[in-house]
Amino acid sequence: MKRNTGSIPRAPVRGRRTAVLLLSGGLDSGTCLALLARWGWTVHAVSFDYGQRHRIELHAARKLARAYGVASHRVLRVPDLGVLGGSALTERRIAVPKNQLGEAAIPVTYVPARNTIFLSFALAVAESSGASEIVIGANALDTSGYPDCRPPFLRAFEKTARLGTRAGVEGRSLSIRAPLLRMTKAEIVKLAEALGLDTSLTSSCYDPAPDGTPCGACDSCLLRERGFREAGLVDPKRC
Amino acid sequence: MKRNTGSIPRAPVRGRRTAVLLLSGGLDSGTCLALLARWGWTVHAVSFDYGQRHRIELHAARKLARAYGVASHRVLRVPDLGVLGGSALTERRIAVPKNQLGEAAIPVTYVPARNTIFLSFALAVAESSGASEIVIGANALDTSGYPDCRPPFLRAFEKTARLGTRAGVEGRSLSIRAPLLRMTKAEIVKLAEALGLDTSLTSSCYDPAPDGTPCGACDSCLLRERGFREAGLVDPKRC
Repeated sequence: MKRNTGSIPRAPVRGRRTAVLLLSGGLDSGTCLALLARWGWTVHAVSFDYGQRHRIELHAARKLARAYGVASHRVLRVPDLGVLGGSALTERRIAVPKNQLGEAAIPVTYVPARNTIFLSFALAVAESSGASEIVIGANALDTSGYPDCRPPFLRAFEKTARLGTRAGVEGRSLSIRAPLLRMTKAEIVKLAEALGLDTSLTSSCYDPAPDGTPCGACDSCLLRERGFREAGLVDPKRC
Repeated sequence: MKRNTGSIPRAPVRGRRTAVLLLSGGLDSGTCLALLARWGWTVHAVSFDYGQRHRIELHAARKLARAYGVASHRVLRVPDLGVLGGSALTERRIAVPKNQLGEAAIPVTYVPARNTIFLSFALAVAESSGASEIVIGANALDTSGYPDCRPPFLRAFEKTARLGTRAGVEGRSLSIRAPLLRMTKAEIVKLAEALGLDTSLTSSCYDPAPDGTPCGACDSCLLRERGFREAGLVDPKRC
Protein backbone atom coordinates (compact mmCIF):
# COMPACT_ATOMS: atom_id res chain seq x y z
CA MET A 1 0.00 0.00 0.00
CA LYS A 2 1.41 3.39 -1.01
CA ARG A 3 1.98 5.62 1.99
CA ASN A 4 1.74 9.37 2.12
CA THR A 5 4.74 10.99 3.72
CA GLY A 6 3.21 14.13 5.17
CA SER A 7 3.12 16.65 2.35
CA ILE A 8 -0.18 18.17 1.24
CA PRO A 9 -1.84 15.87 -1.34
CA ARG A 10 -2.71 17.46 -4.64
CA ALA A 11 -6.28 17.49 -5.88
CA PRO A 12 -7.06 14.27 -7.79
CA VAL A 13 -8.66 16.27 -10.61
CA ARG A 14 -8.11 19.71 -12.10
CA GLY A 15 -10.41 22.65 -11.67
CA ARG A 16 -12.90 23.74 -9.06
CA ARG A 17 -15.11 20.82 -8.07
CA THR A 18 -18.22 20.63 -5.95
CA ALA A 19 -18.02 18.04 -3.20
CA VAL A 20 -20.29 16.59 -0.56
CA LEU A 21 -18.19 16.01 2.57
CA LEU A 22 -19.15 13.63 5.36
CA LEU A 23 -18.26 15.89 8.29
CA SER A 24 -18.45 14.04 11.59
CA GLY A 25 -16.57 16.76 13.44
CA GLY A 26 -13.59 14.51 14.18
CA LEU A 27 -9.94 15.00 13.29
CA ASP A 28 -10.12 13.08 10.01
CA SER A 29 -13.16 14.78 8.51
CA GLY A 30 -11.90 18.15 9.80
CA THR A 31 -8.61 17.55 7.98
CA CYS A 32 -10.54 16.64 4.82
CA LEU A 33 -12.43 19.92 5.08
CA ALA A 34 -9.20 21.90 5.38
CA LEU A 35 -7.81 19.98 2.39
CA LEU A 36 -10.86 20.66 0.21
CA ALA A 37 -10.62 24.34 1.16
CA ARG A 38 -6.98 24.30 0.08
CA TRP A 39 -7.98 22.75 -3.25
CA GLY A 40 -10.52 25.52 -3.73
CA TRP A 41 -13.45 23.11 -3.95
CA THR A 42 -17.01 24.08 -3.11
CA VAL A 43 -18.10 22.04 -0.09
CA HIS A 44 -21.56 20.86 0.95
CA ALA A 45 -21.01 19.38 4.39
CA VAL A 46 -23.27 16.66 5.78
CA SER A 47 -23.39 15.52 9.40
CA PHE A 48 -25.68 12.98 11.05
CA ASP A 49 -27.65 13.11 14.23
CA TYR A 50 -28.20 9.39 14.84
CA GLY A 51 -28.55 9.21 18.59
CA GLN A 52 -24.81 8.80 19.02
CA ARG A 53 -23.39 8.82 22.52
CA HIS A 54 -20.92 11.47 21.36
CA ARG A 55 -23.44 13.97 19.98
CA ILE A 56 -20.95 16.65 21.04
CA GLU A 57 -19.21 15.96 17.71
CA LEU A 58 -22.10 17.75 15.97
CA HIS A 59 -21.08 20.98 17.73
CA ALA A 60 -17.55 20.41 16.46
CA ALA A 61 -18.91 19.84 12.95
CA ARG A 62 -20.85 23.11 13.10
CA LYS A 63 -17.79 25.04 14.29
CA LEU A 64 -15.65 23.55 11.52
CA ALA A 65 -18.29 24.26 8.86
CA ARG A 66 -18.49 27.87 10.03
CA ALA A 67 -14.70 28.29 10.21
CA TYR A 68 -14.34 27.17 6.59
CA GLY A 69 -17.40 28.93 5.18
CA VAL A 70 -18.90 25.88 3.48
CA ALA A 71 -21.56 26.37 0.82
CA SER A 72 -24.03 24.43 2.98
CA HIS A 73 -24.05 22.29 6.11
CA ARG A 74 -26.88 19.83 6.66
CA VAL A 75 -27.31 17.94 9.92
CA LEU A 76 -29.48 15.04 8.78
CA ARG A 77 -31.57 13.20 11.33
CA VAL A 78 -31.36 9.42 11.28
CA PRO A 79 -33.30 8.81 14.49
CA ASP A 80 -33.71 5.06 14.03
CA LEU A 81 -30.11 4.09 13.37
CA GLY A 82 -29.72 3.60 17.11
CA VAL A 83 -32.78 1.38 17.48
CA LEU A 84 -31.37 -1.00 14.86
CA GLY A 85 -28.98 -1.85 17.64
CA GLY A 86 -25.73 -3.64 17.96
CA SER A 87 -23.25 -0.85 18.70
CA ALA A 88 -21.67 0.67 21.79
CA LEU A 89 -21.92 4.06 20.04
CA THR A 90 -25.71 4.04 20.13
CA GLU A 91 -26.70 1.62 22.90
CA ARG A 92 -26.19 2.81 26.45
CA ARG A 93 -26.24 -0.75 27.77
CA ILE A 94 -23.11 -1.62 25.74
CA ALA A 95 -20.02 -0.02 27.29
CA VAL A 96 -17.47 1.74 25.09
CA PRO A 97 -14.31 -0.40 25.43
CA LYS A 98 -11.42 1.37 27.15
CA ASN A 99 -7.70 0.78 26.69
CA GLN A 100 -8.23 -2.15 24.30
CA LEU A 101 -6.96 -0.69 21.04
CA GLY A 102 -6.61 -3.31 18.33
CA GLU A 103 -7.79 -6.25 20.43
CA ALA A 104 -10.99 -6.93 18.48
CA ALA A 105 -11.07 -7.58 14.71
CA ILE A 106 -14.27 -5.54 14.50
CA PRO A 107 -14.96 -3.70 17.78
CA VAL A 108 -18.35 -3.19 19.44
CA THR A 109 -18.25 0.49 18.49
CA TYR A 110 -18.95 -0.63 14.90
CA VAL A 111 -22.44 0.58 13.91
CA PRO A 112 -24.07 -1.85 11.43
CA ALA A 113 -23.90 -0.46 7.89
CA ARG A 114 -23.29 3.07 9.17
CA ASN A 115 -20.98 4.28 6.43
CA THR A 116 -23.17 2.67 3.75
CA ILE A 117 -26.12 4.63 5.13
CA PHE A 118 -24.12 7.86 5.47
CA LEU A 119 -22.64 7.58 1.98
CA SER A 120 -26.14 6.92 0.60
CA PHE A 121 -27.39 10.17 2.10
CA ALA A 122 -24.30 11.96 0.77
CA LEU A 123 -25.20 10.52 -2.62
CA ALA A 124 -28.71 12.00 -2.38
CA VAL A 125 -27.19 15.40 -1.48
CA ALA A 126 -24.72 15.06 -4.38
CA GLU A 127 -27.58 14.34 -6.78
CA SER A 128 -29.68 17.27 -5.66
CA SER A 129 -26.77 19.73 -5.41
CA GLY A 130 -25.04 18.64 -8.61
CA ALA A 131 -21.82 17.67 -6.81
CA SER A 132 -19.46 15.38 -8.68
CA GLU A 133 -17.45 14.28 -5.64
CA ILE A 134 -18.30 12.63 -2.33
CA VAL A 135 -15.50 12.93 0.22
CA ILE A 136 -15.09 10.73 3.29
CA GLY A 137 -12.32 10.83 5.89
CA ALA A 138 -12.04 7.04 5.91
CA ASN A 139 -8.68 5.64 6.81
CA ALA A 140 -7.47 2.11 6.21
CA LEU A 141 -4.31 2.13 8.33
CA ASP A 142 -4.76 3.49 11.86
CA THR A 143 -8.39 2.60 12.33
CA SER A 144 -10.54 0.51 14.60
CA GLY A 145 -10.99 -2.19 11.98
CA TYR A 146 -14.40 -1.18 10.65
CA PRO A 147 -15.19 -3.03 7.40
CA ASP A 148 -16.87 0.03 5.94
CA CYS A 149 -13.67 2.09 5.94
CA ARG A 150 -11.72 -0.23 3.65
CA PRO A 151 -10.73 0.50 0.02
CA PRO A 152 -12.68 -2.38 -1.60
CA PHE A 153 -15.87 -1.22 0.13
CA LEU A 154 -15.37 2.36 -1.04
CA ARG A 155 -14.73 1.25 -4.62
CA ALA A 156 -17.83 -0.95 -4.58
CA PHE A 157 -19.93 1.91 -3.21
CA GLU A 158 -18.65 4.21 -5.95
CA LYS A 159 -19.80 1.72 -8.58
CA THR A 160 -23.18 1.39 -6.86
CA ALA A 161 -23.50 5.17 -6.75
CA ARG A 162 -22.77 5.54 -10.44
CA LEU A 163 -25.26 2.83 -11.40
CA GLY A 164 -28.06 3.88 -9.10
CA THR A 165 -28.42 7.58 -9.73
CA ARG A 166 -29.63 9.92 -12.41
CA ALA A 167 -26.20 11.56 -12.51
CA GLY A 168 -24.40 8.29 -13.10
CA VAL A 169 -26.88 6.97 -15.65
CA GLU A 170 -26.75 10.23 -17.58
CA GLY A 171 -22.97 9.91 -17.75
CA ARG A 172 -21.99 12.72 -15.41
CA SER A 173 -18.90 12.15 -13.27
CA LEU A 174 -19.43 10.89 -9.72
CA SER A 175 -16.52 9.83 -7.53
CA ILE A 176 -15.99 8.75 -3.95
CA ARG A 177 -12.78 10.31 -2.61
CA ALA A 178 -11.02 9.24 0.56
CA PRO A 179 -7.90 11.42 0.59
CA LEU A 180 -6.72 10.10 3.98
CA LEU A 181 -7.20 6.44 3.10
CA ARG A 182 -3.54 5.49 3.04
CA MET A 183 -2.25 7.77 5.78
CA THR A 184 -1.32 6.87 9.33
CA LYS A 185 -2.93 8.93 12.07
CA ALA A 186 0.45 10.65 12.59
CA GLU A 187 0.50 11.64 8.91
CA ILE A 188 -3.04 12.99 9.23
CA VAL A 189 -1.99 15.06 12.27
CA LYS A 190 0.95 16.45 10.27
CA LEU A 191 -1.32 17.20 7.33
CA ALA A 192 -3.79 19.00 9.59
CA GLU A 193 -0.86 21.06 10.94
CA ALA A 194 0.44 21.79 7.41
CA LEU A 195 -3.05 22.95 6.39
CA GLY A 196 -3.35 25.20 9.43
CA LEU A 197 -6.39 23.36 10.79
CA ASP A 198 -7.27 24.40 14.33
CA THR A 199 -7.53 20.86 15.70
CA SER A 200 -9.02 22.18 18.94
CA LEU A 201 -12.24 22.58 16.94
CA THR A 202 -12.42 18.82 16.31
CA SER A 203 -13.87 16.16 18.61
CA SER A 204 -12.80 12.53 18.35
CA CYS A 205 -13.88 10.83 21.60
CA TYR A 206 -16.57 8.13 21.52
CA ASP A 207 -17.51 8.61 25.17
CA PRO A 208 -16.96 12.22 26.20
CA ALA A 209 -18.07 13.86 29.46
CA PRO A 210 -21.21 16.02 29.15
CA ASP A 211 -18.99 19.11 28.75
CA GLY A 212 -17.18 17.45 25.83
CA THR A 213 -14.01 16.50 27.69
CA PRO A 214 -12.61 13.40 25.95
CA CYS A 215 -12.36 10.19 27.99
CA GLY A 216 -8.77 9.57 26.89
CA ALA A 217 -9.21 5.79 26.85
CA CYS A 218 -11.57 4.78 24.00
CA ASP A 219 -10.14 3.52 20.68
CA SER A 220 -10.67 6.89 19.06
CA CYS A 221 -8.90 8.81 21.86
CA LEU A 222 -6.01 6.32 21.88
CA LEU A 223 -5.55 6.53 18.10
CA ARG A 224 -5.60 10.32 18.23
CA GLU A 225 -3.16 10.47 21.15
CA ARG A 226 -0.76 8.10 19.39
CA GLY A 227 -1.06 10.12 16.17
CA PHE A 228 -0.12 13.39 17.85
CA ARG A 229 2.70 11.72 19.79
CA GLU A 230 4.18 10.08 16.69
CA ALA A 231 3.84 13.35 14.78
CA GLY A 232 5.79 15.10 17.55
CA LEU A 233 2.94 17.53 18.14
CA VAL A 234 0.76 18.45 21.11
CA ASP A 235 -2.98 17.88 20.88
CA PRO A 236 -4.67 21.14 21.88
CA LYS A 237 -7.52 19.00 23.22
CA ARG A 238 -5.05 16.87 25.21
CA CYS A 239 -7.18 13.92 24.28
CA MET B 1 -33.69 -11.16 -20.55
CA LYS B 2 -35.36 -14.30 -19.20
CA ARG B 3 -39.03 -13.76 -18.55
CA ASN B 4 -41.17 -15.43 -15.94
CA THR B 5 -44.34 -16.87 -17.34
CA GLY B 6 -46.63 -16.63 -14.35
CA SER B 7 -45.91 -19.71 -12.24
CA ILE B 8 -44.75 -19.31 -8.65
CA PRO B 9 -40.95 -18.91 -8.59
CA ARG B 10 -39.09 -21.39 -6.46
CA ALA B 11 -36.88 -20.20 -3.60
CA PRO B 12 -33.38 -19.39 -4.88
CA VAL B 13 -31.81 -21.36 -2.01
CA ARG B 14 -32.86 -24.38 0.04
CA GLY B 15 -33.96 -24.27 3.63
CA ARG B 16 -35.64 -21.71 5.81
CA ARG B 17 -33.93 -18.35 5.42
CA THR B 18 -34.29 -15.11 7.33
CA ALA B 19 -34.92 -12.11 5.11
CA VAL B 20 -35.27 -8.38 5.49
CA LEU B 21 -38.01 -7.22 3.12
CA LEU B 22 -38.40 -3.64 1.90
CA LEU B 23 -42.18 -3.37 2.33
CA SER B 24 -43.52 -0.16 0.80
CA GLY B 25 -47.11 -1.37 0.94
CA GLY B 26 -47.46 -1.43 -2.84
CA LEU B 27 -48.41 -4.32 -5.11
CA ASP B 28 -44.81 -5.41 -5.80
CA SER B 29 -43.56 -5.53 -2.22
CA GLY B 30 -46.86 -7.10 -1.12
CA THR B 31 -46.38 -9.83 -3.71
CA CYS B 32 -42.81 -10.36 -2.46
CA LEU B 33 -44.17 -10.77 1.07
CA ALA B 34 -46.67 -13.40 -0.08
CA LEU B 35 -43.88 -15.17 -1.97
CA LEU B 36 -41.53 -15.24 1.04
CA ALA B 37 -44.39 -16.60 3.15
CA ARG B 38 -44.90 -19.34 0.55
CA TRP B 39 -41.17 -20.17 0.73
CA GLY B 40 -41.46 -20.45 4.51
CA TRP B 41 -38.88 -17.73 5.14
CA THR B 42 -38.77 -15.66 8.31
CA VAL B 43 -39.45 -12.04 7.37
CA HIS B 44 -38.33 -8.82 9.03
CA ALA B 45 -40.24 -6.13 7.18
CA VAL B 46 -38.93 -2.58 6.89
CA SER B 47 -40.93 0.45 5.74
CA PHE B 48 -39.91 4.08 5.55
CA ASP B 49 -41.62 7.23 6.67
CA TYR B 50 -39.78 9.81 4.56
CA GLY B 51 -42.33 12.55 4.20
CA GLN B 52 -43.78 10.94 1.09
CA ARG B 53 -46.90 12.41 -0.42
CA HIS B 54 -48.43 8.94 -0.36
CA ARG B 55 -47.92 8.20 3.34
CA ILE B 56 -51.10 6.13 3.10
CA GLU B 57 -48.87 3.32 1.80
CA LEU B 58 -47.55 2.92 5.36
CA HIS B 59 -51.03 1.86 6.48
CA ALA B 60 -51.04 -0.67 3.65
CA ALA B 61 -47.62 -1.93 4.77
CA ARG B 62 -48.88 -2.38 8.34
CA LYS B 63 -51.95 -4.28 7.16
CA LEU B 64 -49.83 -6.57 4.96
CA ALA B 65 -47.30 -7.19 7.75
CA ARG B 66 -50.14 -8.10 10.11
CA ALA B 67 -51.86 -10.34 7.55
CA TYR B 68 -48.68 -12.37 7.03
CA GLY B 69 -47.52 -12.44 10.65
CA VAL B 70 -44.00 -11.17 9.98
CA ALA B 71 -41.32 -11.66 12.66
CA SER B 72 -40.96 -7.88 12.93
CA HIS B 73 -42.06 -4.74 11.11
CA ARG B 74 -40.07 -1.56 11.52
CA VAL B 75 -41.26 1.77 10.17
CA LEU B 76 -38.01 3.72 10.05
CA ARG B 77 -38.11 7.48 10.05
CA VAL B 78 -36.02 9.24 7.42
CA PRO B 79 -37.35 12.74 8.03
CA ASP B 80 -34.75 14.56 5.96
CA LEU B 81 -35.02 12.60 2.72
CA GLY B 82 -37.66 15.09 1.60
CA VAL B 83 -35.56 18.15 2.37
CA LEU B 84 -32.80 16.84 0.11
CA GLY B 85 -35.25 17.74 -2.60
CA GLY B 86 -35.65 17.00 -6.21
CA SER B 87 -38.67 14.69 -6.34
CA ALA B 88 -42.38 15.06 -6.92
CA LEU B 89 -42.90 12.35 -4.29
CA THR B 90 -41.60 14.55 -1.49
CA GLU B 91 -41.94 18.15 -2.71
CA ARG B 92 -45.44 19.60 -2.80
CA ARG B 93 -44.38 22.27 -5.27
CA ILE B 94 -43.53 19.63 -7.90
CA ALA B 95 -46.68 18.08 -9.35
CA VAL B 96 -46.97 14.31 -9.81
CA PRO B 97 -47.16 13.83 -13.60
CA LYS B 98 -50.47 12.46 -14.82
CA ASN B 99 -51.14 10.35 -17.92
CA GLN B 100 -47.53 10.57 -19.09
CA LEU B 101 -46.38 6.98 -18.66
CA GLY B 102 -43.01 6.32 -20.28
CA GLU B 103 -42.49 9.85 -21.60
CA ALA B 104 -39.51 10.72 -19.38
CA ALA B 105 -36.32 8.61 -19.24
CA ILE B 106 -36.16 9.24 -15.50
CA PRO B 107 -39.38 10.86 -14.24
CA VAL B 108 -39.67 13.60 -11.61
CA THR B 109 -41.07 11.07 -9.15
CA TYR B 110 -37.53 9.68 -8.89
CA VAL B 111 -36.22 10.38 -5.35
CA PRO B 112 -32.42 10.90 -5.39
CA ALA B 113 -30.62 7.79 -4.12
CA ARG B 114 -33.80 6.49 -2.45
CA ASN B 115 -33.26 2.79 -3.00
CA THR B 116 -29.59 3.08 -2.07
CA ILE B 117 -30.65 4.65 1.22
CA PHE B 118 -33.44 2.12 1.79
CA LEU B 119 -31.22 -0.86 0.98
CA SER B 120 -28.57 0.55 3.34
CA PHE B 121 -31.06 0.60 6.20
CA ALA B 122 -32.19 -2.91 5.26
CA LEU B 123 -28.54 -3.90 5.45
CA ALA B 124 -28.29 -2.52 8.98
CA VAL B 125 -31.41 -4.49 9.95
CA ALA B 126 -29.96 -7.61 8.30
CA GLU B 127 -26.75 -7.20 10.27
CA SER B 128 -28.46 -6.77 13.61
CA SER B 129 -31.09 -9.49 13.01
CA GLY B 130 -28.71 -12.01 11.46
CA ALA B 131 -30.67 -12.15 8.19
CA SER B 132 -28.85 -13.56 5.18
CA GLU B 133 -31.22 -12.15 2.55
CA ILE B 134 -32.43 -8.67 1.66
CA VAL B 135 -35.50 -8.72 -0.58
CA ILE B 136 -36.70 -5.83 -2.73
CA GLY B 137 -39.67 -5.74 -5.08
CA ALA B 138 -37.67 -3.97 -7.77
CA ASN B 139 -38.77 -4.56 -11.31
CA ALA B 140 -36.77 -3.87 -14.44
CA LEU B 141 -39.51 -4.29 -17.07
CA ASP B 142 -42.71 -2.40 -16.34
CA THR B 143 -41.27 0.41 -14.25
CA SER B 144 -41.01 4.15 -14.36
CA GLY B 145 -37.36 4.04 -15.43
CA TYR B 146 -35.72 4.60 -12.05
CA PRO B 147 -31.99 3.86 -12.24
CA ASP B 148 -32.00 2.30 -8.78
CA CYS B 149 -34.32 -0.54 -9.82
CA ARG B 150 -32.02 -1.99 -12.47
CA PRO B 151 -30.09 -5.27 -12.25
CA PRO B 152 -26.55 -3.79 -12.45
CA PHE B 153 -27.35 -1.45 -9.56
CA LEU B 154 -28.67 -4.31 -7.43
CA ARG B 155 -25.60 -6.46 -8.15
CA ALA B 156 -23.29 -3.57 -7.28
CA PHE B 157 -25.15 -2.93 -4.04
CA GLU B 158 -24.88 -6.61 -3.11
CA LYS B 159 -21.11 -6.42 -3.52
CA THR B 160 -20.98 -3.22 -1.47
CA ALA B 161 -23.07 -4.88 1.24
CA ARG B 162 -20.80 -7.90 1.44
CA LEU B 163 -17.66 -5.77 1.64
CA GLY B 164 -18.96 -3.19 4.09
CA THR B 165 -20.45 -5.28 6.86
CA ARG B 166 -19.33 -7.52 9.65
CA ALA B 167 -21.42 -10.36 8.19
CA GLY B 168 -19.78 -10.10 4.79
CA VAL B 169 -16.25 -9.69 6.12
CA GLU B 170 -16.69 -12.69 8.42
CA GLY B 171 -17.75 -14.77 5.42
CA ARG B 172 -21.43 -15.20 6.20
CA SER B 173 -23.81 -15.26 3.26
CA LEU B 174 -25.56 -12.00 2.35
CA SER B 175 -27.64 -11.66 -0.80
CA ILE B 176 -29.88 -9.07 -2.39
CA ARG B 177 -32.92 -10.79 -3.93
CA ALA B 178 -35.30 -9.16 -6.37
CA PRO B 179 -37.68 -12.00 -7.27
CA LEU B 180 -39.89 -9.78 -9.47
CA LEU B 181 -37.01 -8.24 -11.38
CA ARG B 182 -37.75 -9.86 -14.73
CA MET B 183 -41.54 -9.94 -14.55
CA THR B 184 -43.99 -7.68 -16.31
CA LYS B 185 -46.61 -6.02 -14.16
CA ALA B 186 -49.19 -8.46 -15.59
CA GLU B 187 -47.03 -11.39 -14.47
CA ILE B 188 -46.75 -9.86 -11.01
CA VAL B 189 -50.54 -9.50 -10.84
CA LYS B 190 -50.91 -13.17 -11.85
CA LEU B 191 -48.33 -14.20 -9.28
CA ALA B 192 -50.13 -12.23 -6.57
CA GLU B 193 -53.33 -14.03 -7.58
CA ALA B 194 -51.61 -17.45 -7.58
CA LEU B 195 -50.23 -16.74 -4.09
CA GLY B 196 -53.65 -15.69 -2.81
CA LEU B 197 -52.52 -12.16 -1.94
CA ASP B 198 -55.42 -9.87 -1.09
CA THR B 199 -54.36 -7.05 -3.40
CA SER B 200 -56.97 -4.75 -1.87
CA LEU B 201 -54.53 -4.44 1.06
CA THR B 202 -51.89 -2.86 -1.18
CA SER B 203 -51.58 0.79 -2.15
CA SER B 204 -49.73 1.87 -5.30
CA CYS B 205 -50.80 5.45 -6.04
CA TYR B 206 -48.25 8.28 -5.80
CA ASP B 207 -50.88 10.95 -5.28
CA PRO B 208 -53.90 9.50 -3.47
CA ALA B 209 -56.82 11.44 -2.01
CA PRO B 210 -56.69 11.92 1.77
CA ASP B 211 -58.92 8.85 2.21
CA GLY B 212 -56.47 6.74 0.18
CA THR B 213 -58.48 6.66 -3.06
CA PRO B 214 -55.94 6.29 -5.90
CA CYS B 215 -55.73 9.10 -8.47
CA GLY B 216 -55.85 6.67 -11.40
CA ALA B 217 -53.53 8.79 -13.54
CA CYS B 218 -50.01 8.77 -12.05
CA ASP B 219 -47.35 6.42 -13.47
CA SER B 220 -47.85 3.97 -10.66
CA CYS B 221 -51.65 3.83 -11.10
CA LEU B 222 -51.29 3.47 -14.88
CA LEU B 223 -48.78 0.62 -14.58
CA ARG B 224 -51.00 -1.16 -12.07
CA GLU B 225 -54.11 -0.69 -14.19
CA ARG B 226 -52.35 -2.02 -17.29
CA GLY B 227 -50.99 -4.97 -15.28
CA PHE B 228 -54.43 -6.04 -14.08
CA ARG B 229 -55.94 -5.51 -17.53
CA GLU B 230 -53.24 -7.58 -19.29
CA ALA B 231 -53.56 -10.27 -16.62
CA GLY B 232 -57.29 -10.43 -17.31
CA LEU B 233 -58.07 -9.66 -13.67
CA VAL B 234 -60.00 -6.95 -11.86
CA ASP B 235 -58.16 -4.71 -9.42
CA PRO B 236 -60.16 -4.74 -6.18
CA LYS B 237 -58.91 -1.18 -5.64
CA ARG B 238 -60.08 -0.22 -9.14
CA CYS B 239 -56.96 1.88 -9.38
